[in-house]
Amino acid sequence: MSRDLYLGVDAGGTAIKYEIADSDGAPRGGGEVPTDPRDAAATLRALAAHAAPLLGGVGLPRLAGAGLACAGIVNPVSGWLGRSPNLPGWENRDLGAAMRGAFGAVPVALANDVNGALCGEYRHGAGRGRRDVVMIALGTGVGGAVIVDGRLLVGRHCGAGEIGHMVLDDDGPPCACGSRGCLEAWAGSTGLLRSAREAIRTGAATPALARLVAERGDALDTRDLAGLASGGDPSAIALFATAGRRLGQAVANLVNVLDPDCVIIGGGVARAGELILGPCRERALPLVLATEARAVPIVPAQLGPRAAAVGAASLAREKAREAL
Amino acid sequence: MSRDLYLGVDAGGTAIKYEIADSDGAPRGGGEVPTDPRDAAATLRALAAHAAPLLGGVGLPRLAGAGLACAGIVNPVSGWLGRSPNLPGWENRDLGAAMRGAFGAVPVALANDVNGALCGEYRHGAGRGRRDVVMIALGTGVGGAVIVDGRLLVGRHCGAGEIGHMVLDDDGPPCACGSRGCLEAWAGSTGLLRSAREAIRTGAATPALARLVAERGDALDTRDLAGLASGGDPSAIALFATAGRRLGQAVANLVNVLDPDCVIIGGGVARAGELILGPCRERALPLVLATEARAVPIVPAQLGPRAAAVGAASLAREKAREAL
Repeated sequence: MSRDLYLGVDAGGTAIKYEIADSDGAPRGGGEVPTDPRDAAATLRALAAHAAPLLGGVGLPRLAGAGLACAGIVNPVSGWLGRSPNLPGWENRDLGAAMRGAFGAVPVALANDVNGALCGEYRHGAGRGRRDVVMIALGTGVGGAVIVDGRLLVGRHCGAGEIGHMVLDDDGPPCACGSRGCLEAWAGSTGLLRSAREAIRTGAATPALARLVAERGDALDTRDLAGLASGGDPSAIALFATAGRRLGQAVANLVNVLDPDCVIIGGGVARAGELILGPCRERALPLVLATEARAVPIVPAQLGPRAAAVGAASLAREKAREAL
Repeated sequence: MSRDLYLGVDAGGTAIKYEIADSDGAPRGGGEVPTDPRDAAATLRALAAHAAPLLGGVGLPRLAGAGLACAGIVNPVSGWLGRSPNLPGWENRDLGAAMRGAFGAVPVALANDVNGALCGEYRHGAGRGRRDVVMIALGTGVGGAVIVDGRLLVGRHCGAGEIGHMVLDDDGPPCACGSRGCLEAWAGSTGLLRSAREAIRTGAATPALARLVAERGDALDTRDLAGLASGGDPSAIALFATAGRRLGQAVANLVNVLDPDCVIIGGGVARAGELILGPCRERALPLVLATEARAVPIVPAQLGPRAAAVGAASLAREKAREAL
């Protein structure tokens, strides 16, 4: 039996997803196990047991490499995980060693979660065939990642890609990070939900939006708002348009600095599609200075929540090739 | 006689400066000739004649490589100059061919002017020993350049580094590019002079500032304002502080995206030193998300107006090494 399969792991705060790919990157199944938020090693061992049937059984004889993506400050060279908001019990430890403890002496790759997602989109999704790609992930918060000339931009302190905390207006709404007017404060789901409640307070909401917010209470999410907007509700449409225009300002700022050949918008909020991407493009493109760079496509992500695990598998494949 | 010297050229709208360096990068003299704004080839031939005594005489027998930096969209691979605001008569032509026409069959490197200046600072100035460097050049306009892992970030359409047109506030002052609230509208010299006149209109100016502006008229420049601020004038100090805080917002946005190990502030306005760098650091560092990245030094450029020519010579040296 030859070592011909690659495992990609996306470690979230509650669940850990995995994807298995062959040496061409074709998917060969996947799954999910619960995260033990206090114990990285135990979680990864449980994952190894769960994935074993797909990897040749006990001892994982078909595993050729493993990649892990998780939120936080990940050092892809040393394998060290620094601060990690979703996985506080995993912080400040050698995740590379934990991976080898669970999966044996195979090549191991590590990445920040959005870097992992961008690698997935770059190899198998919306970024295929590109060389310089920016990704913005609109989730509860807003993350980002950058590929320059085919290589992930990690940064000197493994802190690059924090696009969500680009300050777009000093007087903007408060952000979870303590600043005001960060992209995240407008275009993350927390920001969008706050804007919806604010619209009700200021009388900008239609009765339908007010009713939705009252009915859903704390369960309100951006899918609810997108549903209402898709039905034509002007105040719900306006919420996504405001978020989209701020996203556009951030995209233009990035295009002016990086001049990529593709900008990918992912994350749960991006499922609102053209409700947010339309206003984003409309705002961004006139702000781009270099005429040639105005043609940059601003496109939705294609892999959805699988992206980071798919990307982690592709990073494992690259690592294994380097090791040859 | 061996080919042991490298020529770096900085083509501006009125003058073309050059620097000569040996194979260790040590300076071996330089000079300046007027720019013929309609004729790149003639200007470069005049420069070759002017520099000949330093390069072994007729035929430039000691010249081992030549680099040219100029404002505009420069394709360093094809040698093509696209739009160039300062050199409209040089636009849309093969500058690499013009360089070879003037300097013979030596390796030729081309770069955008701020990219050239950053290369100079990276090899011989404020960026020595760093690997990931951002430069912001505060001139009439505001330019920028980025080195990632030791390599210039050029961008897919050779349009990267337009840091001056990062929009920091939708409602900010108008910028020459047609947008509002770009960094350039606050921190370029045109923006600063506009702010000074605005301070007089709104009554925020001291009598000393009002007198200075009236006396200097159209000849007013940022050195005048820096002189007044250095003497303690509170309204002149406030002008640089406002520009510095906006610069700080832009620096923080860049550090959050790129996580460099050094940020260099150059250009004429930066000669105001701590008047602008102090407020810049004060604003920037709390906005940086990754704790580790907050230690990034924000430092003045060291090479002054020589930077782009020095950088062009170092690019020529690198090109010649690649050609071996």
